[in-house]
Amino acid sequence: MKLYDGGRAPNPRRVRIFLAEKGLSVPMEPVNLGALEHKTAAYTAINPLQRVPALVLDDGTVITESMAICRYFEGLRPEPPLFGRGGREEALVEMWNRRIELNLYEAVSAVFRHLHPAMREMENQIPEWGEANKPRAIALLALLDRELADRPYLAGEHYSVADITGLVAVDFMKPAKLEVPEEFANLRRWHAQVTARPSAKA
Amino acid sequence: MKLYDGGRAPNPRRVRIFLAEKGLSVPMEPVNLGALEHKTAAYTAINPLQRVPALVLDDGTVITESMAICRYFEGLRPEPPLFGRGGREEALVEMWNRRIELNLYEAVSAVFRHLHPAMREMENQIPEWGEANKPRAIALLALLDRELADRPYLAGEHYSVADITGLVAVDFMKPAKLEVPEEFANLRRWHAQVTARPSAKA
Repeated sequence: MKLYDGGRAPNPRRVRIFLAEKGLSVPMEPVNLGALEHKTAAYTAINPLQRVPALVLDDGTVITESMAICRYFEGLRPEPPLFGRGGREEALVEMWNRRIELNLYEAVSAVFRHLHPAMREMENQIPEWGEANKPRAIALLALLDRELADRPYLAGEHYSVADITGLVAVDFMKPAKLEVPEEFANLRRWHAQVTARPSAKA
Repeated sequence: MKLYDGGRAPNPRRVRIFLAEKGLSVPMEPVNLGALEHKTAAYTAINPLQRVPALVLDDGTVITESMAICRYFEGLRPEPPLFGRGGREEALVEMWNRRIELNLYEAVSAVFRHLHPAMREMENQIPEWGEANKPRAIALLALLDRELADRPYLAGEHYSVADITGLVAVDFMKPAKLEVPEEFANLRRWHAQVTARPSAKA
């Protein structure tokens, strides 16, 4: 198999952190997003949506979408479980992963894509949409901060894929020129903790 | 357990179709979105994100996010499998479900929320963002139409949660005042087929 990777972009990083937590190593093929390599005919043949990452299996099957790729690896190597242990916990991991994706990760992406000068040529920017997403991102951080008062990780007692999505989303705030408010002490404690894991450098 | 349902809104419908396909029946509590019941303090205590549906388990655990709720039911009643059979198919179901959610369902939602006069009081509308999402929705329909030339269902040979998300997204185009282009014959064949299942009326 081969993983088409996108360097510093947040979604490829989600998959690399996941692999590091699993102790899995997969052959990687870099896709240069700055040079618009994901828009070439060759890459479009792999992923018609022109996004990274993409995993190509030995039988030629292409799996895109970071969470679909991570689930495939969870099936290959179930330990440690990163999508939860048992029905209730699996549902809570899915819930927190999606709450973070839909309300934080996507909001931060919208701020970055619609307001950052570097994205001016790549995106049809709508600055008003970028601005509208700033309070959405902060509201979700406030919810996470309250939740983290009672538990170590975003979905409960165990590190999970929700923590990976949360870490990548919070780190994506820097290029989006957003800051975690000083008063979110629980969130800052959690962020320091997940950043200290070796996988965070993947 | 109890399922807080939201009537005609698309996400609650996803869960009801899922339950109908599983042959499961769950006690429902209607939440009147038109009367802003999802914004009340009572409902906010259940889901701080003020969205439906929400599933409350007998031990008080609250599960929100439609796909997290559906996964919980998949664990309770594995047959028929709606999230795939085996690692490769599970990854493909997740991939197609997410491609449809992120590129069609969310685009149609943005068109509805940011352009429909009925949403003027509920949303801080940005019409330019609504307009920007129309071509995104149509582009994903075009991809689905090409894919459906070779197979009966969106993720392969079997009906899955990707078909549920696809059906709900396409049906949501009507209130968003969008139309499936006439030339997408494969997509129209698929839509007629999934609409004819008894679950579509759930």
